Amino acid sequence: VNPDIASERQTASFSVEKLTAWLDGGAEHTRIRRAVVEAIECDPVFSRENQYFQSQNERYEAAVRKAVHLQKKMREMGWTENGPEHKYIHRALAGDVAFLLHRIFMRSISTLGSDKQVAKWIPLATQYQLIGSYAQTELGHGTYLQGLETTAVFDITTQEFILNTPKISAMKWWPGDMGRSATHTVVFAQLYVHGKCYGVHPFIVQIRSLQDHSLCPGVTAGDIGPKMNFEHTDNGFLMLQNVRVPKENMLNKFCEVQPDGTYVRWGSQKINYFTMTTVRVSVLSDEVVVPLMKACTIAVRYAAVRRQSKLRPGEEEAKILDYQTQQEKLLPQLAAAYAFHLITDYLQKLFDRGYREIQRKNFDTLPELHAFSSGFKALISQYCTSAVDICLRACGGHGYSLLSGLPSLYTRILASCIYEGENTVLLLQTARFLVKCFMAASTGQPVPPSVTYLAAVKPGKCPAKNKLDFLSPDIYTEAYRHTAARLVSSTAAKLQDLIQSGVKKHDAWNQCTVQLAQAAKAHCHYITVKNFAETVEKLKTQAGIQKIMKHLCDLFALHGIFSNAGVFLHDGYLSGAQMDMVTASYLDLLPVIRKDAVPLVDAFDFTDKSLNSALGSYDGHVYQRLYEWAQNSPTNKQMSPAYERYLKPLLHNKLSKL
Amino acid sequence: VNPDIASERQTASFSVEKLTAWLDGGAEHTRIRRAVVEAIECDPVFSRENQYFQSQNERYEAAVRKAVHLQKKMREMGWTENGPEHKYIHRALAGDVAFLLHRIFMRSISTLGSDKQVAKWIPLATQYQLIGSYAQTELGHGTYLQGLETTAVFDITTQEFILNTPKISAMKWWPGDMGRSATHTVVFAQLYVHGKCYGVHPFIVQIRSLQDHSLCPGVTAGDIGPKMNFEHTDNGFLMLQNVRVPKENMLNKFCEVQPDGTYVRWGSQKINYFTMTTVRVSVLSDEVVVPLMKACTIAVRYAAVRRQSKLRPGEEEAKILDYQTQQEKLLPQLAAAYAFHLITDYLQKLFDRGYREIQRKNFDTLPELHAFSSGFKALISQYCTSAVDICLRACGGHGYSLLSGLPSLYTRILASCIYEGENTVLLLQTARFLVKCFMAASTGQPVPPSVTYLAAVKPGKCPAKNKLDFLSPDIYTEAYRHTAARLVSSTAAKLQDLIQSGVKKHDAWNQCTVQLAQAAKAHCHYITVKNFAETVEKLKTQAGIQKIMKHLCDLFALHGIFSNAGVFLHDGYLSGAQMDMVTASYLDLLPVIRKDAVPLVDAFDFTDKSLNSALGSYDGHVYQRLYEWAQNSPTNKQMSPAYERYLKPLLHNKLSKL
Repeated sequence: VNPDIASERQTASFSVEKLTAWLDGGAEHTRIRRAVVEAIECDPVFSRENQYFQSQNERYEAAVRKAVHLQKKMREMGWTENGPEHKYIHRALAGDVAFLLHRIFMRSISTLGSDKQVAKWIPLATQYQLIGSYAQTELGHGTYLQGLETTAVFDITTQEFILNTPKISAMKWWPGDMGRSATHTVVFAQLYVHGKCYGVHPFIVQIRSLQDHSLCPGVTAGDIGPKMNFEHTDNGFLMLQNVRVPKENMLNKFCEVQPDGTYVRWGSQKINYFTMTTVRVSVLSDEVVVPLMKACTIAVRYAAVRRQSKLRPGEEEAKILDYQTQQEKLLPQLAAAYAFHLITDYLQKLFDRGYREIQRKNFDTLPELHAFSSGFKALISQYCTSAVDICLRACGGHGYSLLSGLPSLYTRILASCIYEGENTVLLLQTARFLVKCFMAASTGQPVPPSVTYLAAVKPGKCPAKNKLDFLSPDIYTEAYRHTAARLVSSTAAKLQDLIQSGVKKHDAWNQCTVQLAQAAKAHCHYITVKNFAETVEKLKTQAGIQKIMKHLCDLFALHGIFSNAGVFLHDGYLSGAQMDMVTASYLDLLPVIRKDAVPLVDAFDFTDKSLNSALGSYDGHVYQRLYEWAQNSPTNKQMSPAYERYLKPLLHNKLSKL
Repeated sequence: VNPDIASERQTASFSVEKLTAWLDGGAEHTRIRRAVVEAIECDPVFSRENQYFQSQNERYEAAVRKAVHLQKKMREMGWTENGPEHKYIHRALAGDVAFLLHRIFMRSISTLGSDKQVAKWIPLATQYQLIGSYAQTELGHGTYLQGLETTAVFDITTQEFILNTPKISAMKWWPGDMGRSATHTVVFAQLYVHGKCYGVHPFIVQIRSLQDHSLCPGVTAGDIGPKMNFEHTDNGFLMLQNVRVPKENMLNKFCEVQPDGTYVRWGSQKINYFTMTTVRVSVLSDEVVVPLMKACTIAVRYAAVRRQSKLRPGEEEAKILDYQTQQEKLLPQLAAAYAFHLITDYLQKLFDRGYREIQRKNFDTLPELHAFSSGFKALISQYCTSAVDICLRACGGHGYSLLSGLPSLYTRILASCIYEGENTVLLLQTARFLVKCFMAASTGQPVPPSVTYLAAVKPGKCPAKNKLDFLSPDIYTEAYRHTAARLVSSTAAKLQDLIQSGVKKHDAWNQCTVQLAQAAKAHCHYITVKNFAETVEKLKTQAGIQKIMKHLCDLFALHGIFSNAGVFLHDGYLSGAQMDMVTASYLDLLPVIRKDAVPLVDAFDFTDKSLNSALGSYDGHVYQRLYEWAQNSPTNKQMSPAYERYLKPLLHNKLSKL
């Protein structure tokens, strides 16, 4: 172990093992997680060793190989879909595995299909007698599902649906597992019966032969080509020309076309939204917070062994982690990783409770849960993407090498800002909820618990008198609360003013959207700070951990005020002098947390294999590892043909012959 | 042409052709640029058609092929190094060409070599009888050049230098063209004579055989492997073990080791810094501003043809460019592209003047020029990188496809934040200059013209009374000026306070660096706004262009205040009510500029080939092009072997045999 990183571990102010167990939700979970990681990492089929050198074709092959092998592995290990190990498998594989959409295929049938449909398709899918996908997004429509253009026309004579891609923008585009793997997919299409459109409905469509994998008649499908990441996934396109499926292939738990063409709808559609909503929340941990934790681990460990320039003349070169600017880059991201781990945990529990309510046919919490999932998906994915970017740049040139692991973390987390709902659209959904609740609250109507604070918007001043006051969670949480409420109320007021001045409602809304999105973010930021502070408060029994978590909570909160100073100063809630106190307390925290920075990333408990980073390994031997890994690059395997073809004739002055 | 984009062009408030000519610095330049672009794009050797599908090996080969072919092309076309066409070649090739370091090799010999060395090496390099590189950065040292660890020991008996890589961190790492192409390189090493170290000096070292390209004795070299971009460049590593070069190979314009080992230094070293400084400025246009212009072109054109959701019920789906949030994402980036185009133009002229002064042995402007180049390189590269990121995300899912062109623009421009000086380090160099000037100014000493404003720091209030006042360049430029001066003075005061309270000078500096970097950015931001406003003011004769440029200047300035509200509100220079006026004027500008958005990106005059984007083409047929291009992906060329190996056995239920 590099002594520069070994020394960082000797002075930890807390037990790393205890913090890991706390993050996992108990030592037993830690044990199970480690067992899963161990089993997967010691199996060569799951190796990611050559990942950074592989082409899109190779990545896809590897992902399929892993997905198939995973079935075997799970049987061998006795892991089941509902077992405690299951949630750690994706993390252990770092998501580099095929057939994720197969699971969405199954989930959509379970949710939207009748008992008969479930009985028919789920066993086939479970046994992998087919490979499923989920074809919703089209070339021309992603966010706005009502605008989907694929059609499904009911043919009363044959009792079939005829599916078509009427124009190029209607082509299905992006569905994972569909470009090369899937044999079946759930196609979302506009249902037409007797010339009347009944809106978007899901249909099970076979697209490839179960015998030889050739495309079925009327089907055009393939891979959409290279992307910024997800090379392992065969995101696909799909065109349908008069593809007929039997009437039974429309998922019909909530609605049905009867033999005579009568359209019947029953049950609630609300549960569908709830499925989308839960996916949004469940993706946050593995695809957003974990990647940020990895990026922090890599960047902090590297900063502890990278020495560059001198802090004081005559001394040896300093660890870059000792520079204030480097601390100010990395430590707030580290605090954010903890903050967002805690809030996703909170959201998960909230949604589990909500799910139980909904099973009891109580849909009351649905609007609030939808607002939560939309706003937090947007805030957390955007924040964490920026945070990974900061970690990457903070590693200088070496961060830019794929071998650092940071570029692929960045290009992957970036996708989370786009998929499962575009972030701006999501923030505006949360904003709509907030404005509605604010209006209700101001006329004394009851509102959901998370937004009762909107009822009490009033001018005020922060009572802090010196910089230490800003280390009080009451002080900063109240500042966030006040600011979020002010942004919601002032934007709601602008909206009302516009409408009263004669602007049409929809235009007025559009003219407020920049500020509405800002208000929604402020709301989610406030809830995140509040949750962090409350969680730390409850930690009283674990004093060692509580102290460092309190520092991180303070840092996260003060960083947010420092970085968004305008909204706190705007109405005078904070004065300029108080902002100087915030800045002072914020900067003072950096060297304090810096002392525990390496133990704090160690506590995330990533193995070297899971980090797959030449800069982030536990032992801190970064230069040796960069050199060893670079030598394995295919660019070093043989002399490039460019030599014989171009360089040699050039150097031997035979340029004119070229 | 897609009617949705054709209609955008019919209502331009100005002549696109005139704006293009103005951007180029005159219609004659436009003509020359177009001729160069035309000659290169019609030559199939320079095609970038398959770029997004190529491996690192293929990209490298193509870059070498293009570099070799370029020599031929230049002869054919009569283009010379000093001709007016030369500066457009790199832009036309989109930088995807080898041997760029060969030029730095030549430049360093011209600058640092004696007349004799120039006479020997430059003709060889010009004729490509060798291929040069520039080996400065090491595994362990980038920013801090004094810390380089490669050694060059003078052997008096043989009159040679013995070069060594004493430890792994001393290995040269990153130099372009060195991994596979170069035969020679300029190695920067610590010079030792009689056991005494004289600091870093440059040595010409042959690393590969001119006969068969094999590595020379004592040389270990290769490619550093995959990176986030620059796959076409063979960034390399280099280890030297007792590699001997003759005494004449130390570049000795400014210093020399005499036969007896006496070390002599003469002339000024300052000119060396100036070379680094000019490279930093020259890179901004092609590698930073042009990529942002491309990203804006792609994102704005796409936003004009992408229709999604409805602004008003009952109407057809709206162009996403009509949503306020989309305008607020894209239009400030478009304004920034213009702002930074103008400031880089300004800097280039400033540096040309400075160069003439320096040739007359007048080094007075050097500190100011160095501060300019450092600060602006940092501000512009950081700002434009974020701007490209915003453009990418604003295109939703399709922006994430490599075929959009945006991911490669992003991953490439990101490197500009790291190379040619890490941005934080550069900002702190500018800050050091600013603090020094501020101190001098406050004691009445003369300071360079760009910083005289620091002499007049005083409290004050913005005189604006309503939102229209914020469309006055005097009002907003003064706000930027005030804020920059305040940040410099308050940080200088903090620094003084710390030192007076007994903190050691270097520690005090470190404790102020977060705020110093912020002050340096504010200074450069102020100069950029001021330059934009002054340039628009001078445009009086071209009224059609002046009007839209005035809008863009206003938008750039107000966006900056809106986004950094805290620093303007902090001391009460702007009140909360005035910030509301800024916000109102800022948001009001969006729909105004939106009308000209497509003509404004058309004026950048990129051909479809140079954009290489399925989303950004002139005709707006985005979906057709995405589909056509995707079909060419290697992932669609044949059925993946994964089918026979994994999918077929799985589907045919032979899983147990796997």
